Amino acid sequence: MTRNESASPPDIAVDLAITNVTALLHDEAGAVRFLPGATILVRDGLIVSASADRFTGSSTQQIDGRGQVAMPGLINCHSHSPMVMFRGAAEDVSSSDWFNKKIWPMEVNLTESDVTLGTRLACAEMIASGTTTFADHYFMMDAIADVVAETGLRANLGWTFFSSEGAAGFDRGLAFALERNGSAAGRITTSLAPHADYTVNDDDLRRTAAAGLEHDLLVHIHAAESRIQTRQTRALRGISPIQVLEETGILAGRTLIAHGKGIVPEDLPLLAAARGRVGVGSAPKGYLKVGEETTPIRGLVSAGVAVGLATDGAASNNTLDVWESMMMTSLVQKYVEQDELWMTARQVLGIATLGSAAAIGLAGVVGSLAPGHQADIILIDLSGPHTRPVHDLAATLVYSARSADISTSIVAGTVLMADRSLLTVDVPAVMRELDPRLAELTDISHGKSIQGYGF
Amino acid sequence: MTRNESASPPDIAVDLAITNVTALLHDEAGAVRFLPGATILVRDGLIVSASADRFTGSSTQQIDGRGQVAMPGLINCHSHSPMVMFRGAAEDVSSSDWFNKKIWPMEVNLTESDVTLGTRLACAEMIASGTTTFADHYFMMDAIADVVAETGLRANLGWTFFSSEGAAGFDRGLAFALERNGSAAGRITTSLAPHADYTVNDDDLRRTAAAGLEHDLLVHIHAAESRIQTRQTRALRGISPIQVLEETGILAGRTLIAHGKGIVPEDLPLLAAARGRVGVGSAPKGYLKVGEETTPIRGLVSAGVAVGLATDGAASNNTLDVWESMMMTSLVQKYVEQDELWMTARQVLGIATLGSAAAIGLAGVVGSLAPGHQADIILIDLSGPHTRPVHDLAATLVYSARSADISTSIVAGTVLMADRSLLTVDVPAVMRELDPRLAELTDISHGKSIQGYGF
Repeated sequence: MTRNESASPPDIAVDLAITNVTALLHDEAGAVRFLPGATILVRDGLIVSASADRFTGSSTQQIDGRGQVAMPGLINCHSHSPMVMFRGAAEDVSSSDWFNKKIWPMEVNLTESDVTLGTRLACAEMIASGTTTFADHYFMMDAIADVVAETGLRANLGWTFFSSEGAAGFDRGLAFALERNGSAAGRITTSLAPHADYTVNDDDLRRTAAAGLEHDLLVHIHAAESRIQTRQTRALRGISPIQVLEETGILAGRTLIAHGKGIVPEDLPLLAAARGRVGVGSAPKGYLKVGEETTPIRGLVSAGVAVGLATDGAASNNTLDVWESMMMTSLVQKYVEQDELWMTARQVLGIATLGSAAAIGLAGVVGSLAPGHQADIILIDLSGPHTRPVHDLAATLVYSARSADISTSIVAGTVLMADRSLLTVDVPAVMRELDPRLAELTDISHGKSIQGYGF
Repeated sequence: MTRNESASPPDIAVDLAITNVTALLHDEAGAVRFLPGATILVRDGLIVSASADRFTGSSTQQIDGRGQVAMPGLINCHSHSPMVMFRGAAEDVSSSDWFNKKIWPMEVNLTESDVTLGTRLACAEMIASGTTTFADHYFMMDAIADVVAETGLRANLGWTFFSSEGAAGFDRGLAFALERNGSAAGRITTSLAPHADYTVNDDDLRRTAAAGLEHDLLVHIHAAESRIQTRQTRALRGISPIQVLEETGILAGRTLIAHGKGIVPEDLPLLAAARGRVGVGSAPKGYLKVGEETTPIRGLVSAGVAVGLATDGAASNNTLDVWESMMMTSLVQKYVEQDELWMTARQVLGIATLGSAAAIGLAGVVGSLAPGHQADIILIDLSGPHTRPVHDLAATLVYSARSADISTSIVAGTVLMADRSLLTVDVPAVMRELDPRLAELTDISHGKSIQGYGF
């Protein structure tokens, strides 16, 4: 028996018992292993136990997990959830046109009601595809927080700001972070969210770093987004984007770096020195789509830096499907390292669980079925022909199963999707309100933009 | 009105009418376009029309396509279908160990009954994921042909042979091809299937080329499988694998090349000279998984060579999901060409339809909803949250939809899957027979192998 397979007290009363399931657990070293015939007990929103012991107590709710795998809910380490509104609205354009000619002009049109509708749709997509926690970076975060509260998901939320907004941006983001941290029965945590090291000046980064330390808040920032960005920052300032984060004090606190594709070997010692505090979220599908390099995960993992899975926004990634990111991460990492023995199915399942939890600063809280963790659990139905037979369950999950095979999503012990039916979002109702807004949302004839993009 | 949108005779009697659907059609130049509010009429297994005209005739069967897209069924241009039995049985190994230590020793264990069960499972997976035609390259092809006949799919089947078998291999393959060509009410076509240019000697390739020309049979062969293979063939013989095909006369007939990752620029004029006869099937997911390069599609398309989508076998690719190959092909091509404007969603939909049909020698027969084509049709349900809203339908299909969104699969006018229920394969029954065989199938203690692999 390992630490997270502690015997279930056989006769206690619990809120939820999932029986006859194959459970994805971790051994003492954090490696993924599977326990068939497991019972998972949940009380007060927390995992009580995941073990093969017979359970003779009482349970308010029971789920028969026969033929299914239970694993920690997926964690989306970097998203812009309301951008599902713009899914497919900026295709076949260069990266720079995507920002300057499409998305940033469209975002001028957003109202708080649009953000509410977009977030509802995004939450529906995430619940359906097995994400139970997401780290969001966007505007009008109050509306997003309200939807997180109403849909039952868990999220870390940061209100994006640019230095071009003056002091108002930083102030608004800090006020939001302080007000909403711990809300929605603790499911919402917050971060400070400077847009990027090149759209937020050093003074504002220093203020952010200080406020993050003072209030123990995560700083969630786009940094070293691409090799081109790193080259341009070096040409302009003589240092890399990661060095900018170090010099402005950001790396002294808890930090979530989005993308990090432009992280260079010289950055690794700086990140290694911040290990345990710093994480990187990688969203490989969108990187392929713009023909760019991917996050140097091997170097980061070697340096002890937590790496997590992400989707970015659906305007670039076209889905908010972390399950898809999991497969993509494995495949793309094998390709770029030209090594079929690297980023195996088990390794990427580790990244999807413990790695992603650590990357967003929630190690020990989510990402594991060990006792005391939040009861964020998904069940994957392996009865489809594409997942039969099973010779290697990790490979079945990563390379054969799809997010559509997820039958059940549970957050803090509450079932948000059962038998593939969403219980907390009414998608047709959302679309009845959102569809009539689409023409206006994508109208860029006003010639305005929320920001300019130089890289 | 374009060629394939011919007015439907309003008052005829048809076998099947699909109404209120958005139809994927092609314009005169072969570009993909969408017709909303379309009616597709089918009689005697063929498309009668796909148009926006009102239909007032009678139809034996009607399908309401509201909220769905109809497109030509997907074509898998290279598979080893029964290998679903070995899905996940050879993970985390090098390419050479995959062949020599895992798959080829396991294939010694196969009985005809195993191949039957494996093919049934493969057909279930393919029908469920929208494939209506597959080009298969394997052993015991009689068993596979029987399953194709019973499940209702369309296939081009070639019985794999090696020169190490002596004359028996070629003879058996030719006899099969002649006997089964045109069977299953014409749904089965056949090919000659020499394993590869390096496992079949030049004499056998010449015999294959001559027999292919004499009987108008496709030759389906693994060739230029990787850059390493091309380098080694050049070192050994002074010519590339494609030059081997040219010198042995293979390229003088109809040829389907599997993978072609090792095709070099000097090969392109030889392939261009064979355009209209030669196609290449590309299966990018598995290439990423072994950390290898991908098919140089841009060069092939520029040379006028038909390129189609493929999955290879599920022992390497882990799925037989051509929908997944479609997205992967677009993403990987953008990445390797570092060009976000290449292999757009519309371009890859063209490859999935007209391109794949041409690649397997069935242009004008499948791959289009134009009148006179085989009524091989799939319906994709876009009501899921991950496919809402739709700003760009091509992008929605390629980058947001998954094969699990396919609700209906039709081959030659016969519905093989309705409302996601398979009508011609009983998966639980297959698995009840296959599961007890798995231990023996994967036992390699006998120390034998069906072949040695040198690259």
